[in-house]
Amino acid sequence: MDDIESAAEVRYTGEKGLEDALRGADALFVYDFLSTAVPRAWHAADRMRWVHIASAGVDPVMFPELRESDVVLTNSRGVFDDSIAEYVLGVVIAFAKDLPRSLELQRQVRWQHRETERVGGKRALVVGTGPIGRAIARMLRATGMSVAGMGRRAREADPDFGSVHASAELTRWLPEFDYVVAVAPLTGQTKNMFDAPAFAAMKPGARFVNVGRGELVVTADLIAALRGGELAGAALDVFDTEPLPPDSPLWSMENVLISPHMSGDFVGWRNTLVEVFAENFRRWHTGRPLRNVVDKQLGYVPSGQ
Amino acid sequence: MDDIESAAEVRYTGEKGLEDALRGADALFVYDFLSTAVPRAWHAADRMRWVHIASAGVDPVMFPELRESDVVLTNSRGVFDDSIAEYVLGVVIAFAKDLPRSLELQRQVRWQHRETERVGGKRALVVGTGPIGRAIARMLRATGMSVAGMGRRAREADPDFGSVHASAELTRWLPEFDYVVAVAPLTGQTKNMFDAPAFAAMKPGARFVNVGRGELVVTADLIAALRGGELAGAALDVFDTEPLPPDSPLWSMENVLISPHMSGDFVGWRNTLVEVFAENFRRWHTGRPLRNVVDKQLGYVPSGQ
Repeated sequence: MDDIESAAEVRYTGEKGLEDALRGADALFVYDFLSTAVPRAWHAADRMRWVHIASAGVDPVMFPELRESDVVLTNSRGVFDDSIAEYVLGVVIAFAKDLPRSLELQRQVRWQHRETERVGGKRALVVGTGPIGRAIARMLRATGMSVAGMGRRAREADPDFGSVHASAELTRWLPEFDYVVAVAPLTGQTKNMFDAPAFAAMKPGARFVNVGRGELVVTADLIAALRGGELAGAALDVFDTEPLPPDSPLWSMENVLISPHMSGDFVGWRNTLVEVFAENFRRWHTGRPLRNVVDKQLGYVPSGQ
Repeated sequence: MDDIESAAEVRYTGEKGLEDALRGADALFVYDFLSTAVPRAWHAADRMRWVHIASAGVDPVMFPELRESDVVLTNSRGVFDDSIAEYVLGVVIAFAKDLPRSLELQRQVRWQHRETERVGGKRALVVGTGPIGRAIARMLRATGMSVAGMGRRAREADPDFGSVHASAELTRWLPEFDYVVAVAPLTGQTKNMFDAPAFAAMKPGARFVNVGRGELVVTADLIAALRGGELAGAALDVFDTEPLPPDSPLWSMENVLISPHMSGDFVGWRNTLVEVFAENFRRWHTGRPLRNVVDKQLGYVPSGQ
């Protein structure tokens, strides 16, 4: 932050103090992207022109006052792509190779041979065609999986996905896939898209991976599908309430892998996030176009930016 | 086996009865490749011409009487390549993403964010340049790792490994790698190659994966290296004694992943193993050259076969 401090007055604040800090400020760097403090303090933002968020998903700052304002919103697109893709591939292989069971048997000092699944040849649907979804698709494909994407519009010959199916046809396509990966931005269109009909449409034995947002999923329906065997497993890095409440049945389900919203957070990520902000600050300060400008109507950075 | 039964007298036997079954037999299919019964009953093999083993490693049948005889030995090269490669990639990502700890925290209903490692850019040494090692190299490379091989002779521009280093220089090369994967055949040259000096030479934070044979490793030295922190972790699918004895300290070491010699055993492998034997039987029966003929002096199928 040194370069920025030499070019601007920088105010560091937590939730307490945010109102005072916003007053008179031209730009806001939302470093704790899960904080809900910004909407509540926003009324004090009397000359705000630019908000940058240290995340790929911008849903935490898509409150109406910001959305409908002229304030420019930018995100940290690109930082998490490859680490999230590695995480997704890791949980796919963990499911296929029965790794959680191996660890449990190890804890019990039990030697129990099993036959496990191949990954190669299996089919994965990546729901979300932004840069993270693309990195996931490339990674899964590299191991011999067959991958398709799902986005707003169906299209063919996509460089990363091959086929992209339309999300309006979700339940039509779900039966074809062994793994379904949710990585769509959270918008009015995608909220609750994984509900009971979606889980019912999945192939027997299918597994669900969520590295997007918890609110893409109707959690009660997910739990019912796991209990009912419609879903063979789920790897969940995000939840509609975070931290996941201790009384959630997900914690103790055998076929569920829980991680605490960390799939993208590689060693060094915090510095990288600050660098992404600093680069945009230099652009802003010198009047050049900002990178990763969010289309506030869509709720994400459109492709091609 | 139907085709074979219509072309030959087939005797099925376990350990008990093996002597009687060997008497007068022309060919032997060692289906339970870990059985130690064959050397003990071998004296009864009075007209044996061909032995086929349902595994890639042939060390269980490399006893002197077979080795020095004219009996042709073939193996099941190729069956396990891709599933073992998937397993290796899975444990590499599990280490990088701290997956065992996530499962442990889940069991404790604890939400604990951590920063985890990238896989891309990390360096892996694959010790063993047969088809399984090659499949591992291709798989790790596909995820953005940098891979080298280790074999009897150093060479460059290998299609799968790029550089292959000479195993005589093991300790010279070990310091350069984040992951060391043992998949060499067990021979007089490779037995105990991973010993205290080897583990001491590894990079701080390095992890060791063994999908070859337990006897490639001096187990006491491995345990000491894990305890002493010279090794940050180990994923072990094979052991010098199998099943791994209940009193082995490996079972309860936090940074160790144990699986019961199953990394290659995908659903359907048993049928595939019989098909490989049946194809060779057809060749043998019709006087055509056998596939996967082991060089009994080397202890494996030389490349190019």
